[in-house]
Amino acid sequence: MQDAVHKFICRVYYEDTDLAGIVYYANYLKFIERGRSEWVRSIGIDQRRLRAEEGIVFAVRRIEADYLSPAQYDDELTVTTALEAATGARLVLRQSVLRGDTQLFRARVTLAAIGADGRAARLPAPLRARLG
Amino acid sequence: MQDAVHKFICRVYYEDTDLAGIVYYANYLKFIERGRSEWVRSIGIDQRRLRAEEGIVFAVRRIEADYLSPAQYDDELTVTTALEAATGARLVLRQSVLRGDTQLFRARVTLAAIGADGRAARLPAPLRARLG
Amino acid sequence: MQDAVHKFICRVYYEDTDLAGIVYYANYLKFIERGRSEWVRSIGIDQRRLRAEEGIVFAVRRIEADYLSPAQYDDELTVTTALEAATGARLVLRQSVLRGDTQLFRARVTLAAIGADGRAARLPAPLRARLG
Amino acid sequence: MQDAVHKFICRVYYEDTDLAGIVYYANYLKFIERGRSEWVRSIGIDQRRLRAEEGIVFAVRRIEADYLSPAQYDDELTVTTALEAATGARLVLRQSVLRGDTQLFRARVTLAAIGADGRAARLPAPLRARLG
Repeated sequence: MQDAVHKFICRVYYEDTDLAGIVYYANYLKFIERGRSEWVRSIGIDQRRLRAEEGIVFAVRRIEADYLSPAQYDDELTVTTALEAATGARLVLRQSVLRGDTQLFRARVTLAAIGADGRAARLPAPLRARLG
Repeated sequence: MQDAVHKFICRVYYEDTDLAGIVYYANYLKFIERGRSEWVRSIGIDQRRLRAEEGIVFAVRRIEADYLSPAQYDDELTVTTALEAATGARLVLRQSVLRGDTQLFRARVTLAAIGADGRAARLPAPLRARLG
Repeated sequence: MQDAVHKFICRVYYEDTDLAGIVYYANYLKFIERGRSEWVRSIGIDQRRLRAEEGIVFAVRRIEADYLSPAQYDDELTVTTALEAATGARLVLRQSVLRGDTQLFRARVTLAAIGADGRAARLPAPLRARLG
Repeated sequence: MQDAVHKFICRVYYEDTDLAGIVYYANYLKFIERGRSEWVRSIGIDQRRLRAEEGIVFAVRRIEADYLSPAQYDDELTVTTALEAATGARLVLRQSVLRGDTQLFRARVTLAAIGADGRAARLPAPLRARLG
């Protein structure tokens, strides 16, 4: 299942743009976080319950991101998310933002599962199952 | 002391603007919240401690805001905060955003103090003292 | 057609929340702006073309907003938009944010159409037609 | 002058935090962009004039970022900016966010100067002079 690519659609609104008339660079990180949230939901993980019941949250540890071409106001974007690897308490994801077939942004995102004590926690079972 | 006006300086950065080349309308609410945080600090209230020790936070209940003239990238703005009234667990503040002497934005903001149980809480003593 | 209510669904993501565990107060203004953009699109107005070809943008002039109950992470929200009045170059809208049937936030928003010269512009025809 | 490190102080406000009680990961990119804007100003470049008169803006091309430790509400942060290299129309910067002496976040940021025609532009003279 590692090669499955999750897709999520989002629209660019005024809030996302800056005076250069394009999407502000930090906001791509919002778009891909929405994509990750929807990907996690699609796997069957309820982040709200995971946090409330087990105290586990995901924290971003590293981002490598390339800005290839700017997104514009009113664009309909596709955010893709694919699992690249998982080792111990860490996940590595490949994410992209596309307009139609054109890749505008791509990132490699390393996440860690963190327990209520602030330390590395075991990945939730549905995630581990996908790594089988 | 009710007539004292607190002043806080903030700069407009790229993140604050939108494609119209001016500050995005929701971001004035960020600027005045910064102003309120600094006003509260200037009174001698530590919001972090208030929350950790007494579970009290301030929640906005109502905003009436007028957008008079747009702020631009790189503007140095002054946020003013003045206490208008306080009744029970509620505060009413008058806030403005100015560039030099020109008022760009003004708002009347109603806040409530909320306790750990989610219910109205007594205003912190330093705030009550100012109302005397 | 004045009584038609436009509905738009949006999800609460991490980016929308603050340390109080709820949606940050300025972000409701983002949600209702998304609702306005989709409402305008549903009327048949292309804001991007309106801006490029006629230099017309909508600017918020006044907001009166009540925060009734907080939205939480992962909530699915409905943003409603209804036209209350239009006089000259101004529009007044009633907007709400709901979770299920519960109203969390409501606002009265006054907008002005602004031309390329920065002055009041005539409302676009599809909007005027709705007021007939 | 390449080894000079520019420092900029910023405070964490409610707007910057998320429900995990820490600064939302995308917002570090806002902090370092503020740092870059102040660094550029300190060199004697007026970004507003550069854009209005020569149509030149800086665009981020690549980010490599490590999240080392979370910033909290009310923290006073220092953003550092240092020029690592410049080749043709590109700049590479090293930036950090610190609380006291503790590094919380660090990034390597690649920027390009873009002209009014959307193509690579020569770096502004004050920047080139620093590279001498």
